[in-house]
Amino acid sequence: MRVVALAEMLPALADGAGLMAAIERAFIGYSAGKAVVPPVGELTFEDPPGDVHIKYGYIRGQQHYVIKVASSFYDNPRKGLPSSDGLMLVSRVDTGQLEAVLADGGHLTNVRTAVAGALAARALANPHPRRIGIVGTGIQARLQLRYHLPVTGCRDVVVWGRNADACAAYKAEMEAEGFTVAIAPDIDTLASECDLIVTTTPSTKALLLAAHARAGMHITAVGADTAEKRELDPYLLLRADQVICDSRSQCATRGDTAHAQRELGFDVGQLPELGDILAGKAAGRRTPRDVTICDLTGVAVQDVAIASFVLERLARHA
Amino acid sequence: MRVVALAEMLPALADGAGLMAAIERAFIGYSAGKAVVPPVGELTFEDPPGDVHIKYGYIRGQQHYVIKVASSFYDNPRKGLPSSDGLMLVSRVDTGQLEAVLADGGHLTNVRTAVAGALAARALANPHPRRIGIVGTGIQARLQLRYHLPVTGCRDVVVWGRNADACAAYKAEMEAEGFTVAIAPDIDTLASECDLIVTTTPSTKALLLAAHARAGMHITAVGADTAEKRELDPYLLLRADQVICDSRSQCATRGDTAHAQRELGFDVGQLPELGDILAGKAAGRRTPRDVTICDLTGVAVQDVAIASFVLERLARHA
Repeated sequence: MRVVALAEMLPALADGAGLMAAIERAFIGYSAGKAVVPPVGELTFEDPPGDVHIKYGYIRGQQHYVIKVASSFYDNPRKGLPSSDGLMLVSRVDTGQLEAVLADGGHLTNVRTAVAGALAARALANPHPRRIGIVGTGIQARLQLRYHLPVTGCRDVVVWGRNADACAAYKAEMEAEGFTVAIAPDIDTLASECDLIVTTTPSTKALLLAAHARAGMHITAVGADTAEKRELDPYLLLRADQVICDSRSQCATRGDTAHAQRELGFDVGQLPELGDILAGKAAGRRTPRDVTICDLTGVAVQDVAIASFVLERLARHA
Repeated sequence: MRVVALAEMLPALADGAGLMAAIERAFIGYSAGKAVVPPVGELTFEDPPGDVHIKYGYIRGQQHYVIKVASSFYDNPRKGLPSSDGLMLVSRVDTGQLEAVLADGGHLTNVRTAVAGALAARALANPHPRRIGIVGTGIQARLQLRYHLPVTGCRDVVVWGRNADACAAYKAEMEAEGFTVAIAPDIDTLASECDLIVTTTPSTKALLLAAHARAGMHITAVGADTAEKRELDPYLLLRADQVICDSRSQCATRGDTAHAQRELGFDVGQLPELGDILAGKAAGRRTPRDVTICDLTGVAVQDVAIASFVLERLARHA
């Protein structure tokens, strides 16, 4: 068993295009029925509040299965600790034996989530968005912007978050990376100014409403990955011309689409999956004026893909 | 994150009585509703055949949650590899952060399973069994015998397995440890000669039948931990005076009791749990002539208990 520290993995992750292609193939394979992905394992804690997700599975014909553990403890930043932690266990499908522990502290999960957001933008948003709106100011708010850049070329950003200090820190950090960041006083302002929006919060109340929809807008919601969390009002989903999800089975019980199904009878079973769109098997955006939404809950095949990608690159350079 | 190798853990495991007490408390806490144990995660492989179980949870009021991964790949011994592998991840309930990876290769799972068997024997078998029958010749067949010894004092053993070489190897190894082992030509012989039987196989066909029941016998079935595996004929469960399970929720879908429920309408929901028996809240054996059966599928609290036990002992000697 090999334990790989995060620092060892970072060079492999520098090939963003290669990683994006690997995760795209994983989504396509998943939606084509080539993956074995059992239901998400979940452990919840009340005091202090936290959740741990265990996502695991394999893609038929590949060498490894992956078990990914990711925790989110929301009081951690107040204690000076990162909110997320985790690791990925990579094992052989022919003997079951553990080959590597990728001790990423949750970073690979964060990256594969950001890559999925970028894939959704590439597949569904209008090309060359004018301004990107980022809802939330945490790790995912940063990574989404970085991974969107090669896809959109857009450096003009509006951010909104509940905490003014966190917004200022976000602005400073992202501007140091070459983005121009305006802090929106409220989410209405952000929605009125942006044609590509990514929501990245652990909110349990809807933030974006039907009234925020504007012609040509694309929204990717990555924050809500449990039955409780939500960022999009159900009426916004009804208002959209096209709603895509990463996994129909997961989105029936998790995330924004699940809330809309429970509250408004929105039919998750009829949604195209991102893998279908990426494979060209389902239509995404039909006109430049369409409002499109992609609800991402995070699928184990993304973890399989990023872990396998990292291991292969490490072997290549060993 | 600390990675603990198996060799570092073995001194802690040498305190078998302490470990047994810790696992007993875990069963009692579980059956008293003090544990958070989501459904078992399971990943199955067809070619080569294997299964991976993810068991995870925590006991309220304790410091750690544990995620345990254990794989069983049944063709491995033919390749010169152990059939089981695994590890336990021990994390803090107050921050979610991973504290230690117990790289046990599956040994802790094997040990906590054997300890559960010994607890079942202590709680349910007649004291001082004359002969112990072991069905199967693998790792668990060895460990059950070792962990039963302090409970039963019995060194007189009958073993039965499908493979003559494996039986001979088992006999040689256990006799070197001070047991006297007879190899039974068939399971009928084993059943007719033993008053305490432990079944330890990955069989998917019933091995022990109703006709094998004899007055005063106790049977612990540890092999069947999936929906498919089984070792006891459903009519044997009907024939028994008392059937106990480790977890009603797990045994409704896994192991011998689940088969009996599906095929004969046997009501798993009414079974006492081992934790109830150990706590004195439910009756086990009522007379020396009772036939008792304990169906063990393996509960995450056993993993929580053994991982915490090992970590605490390591901290004490650090």
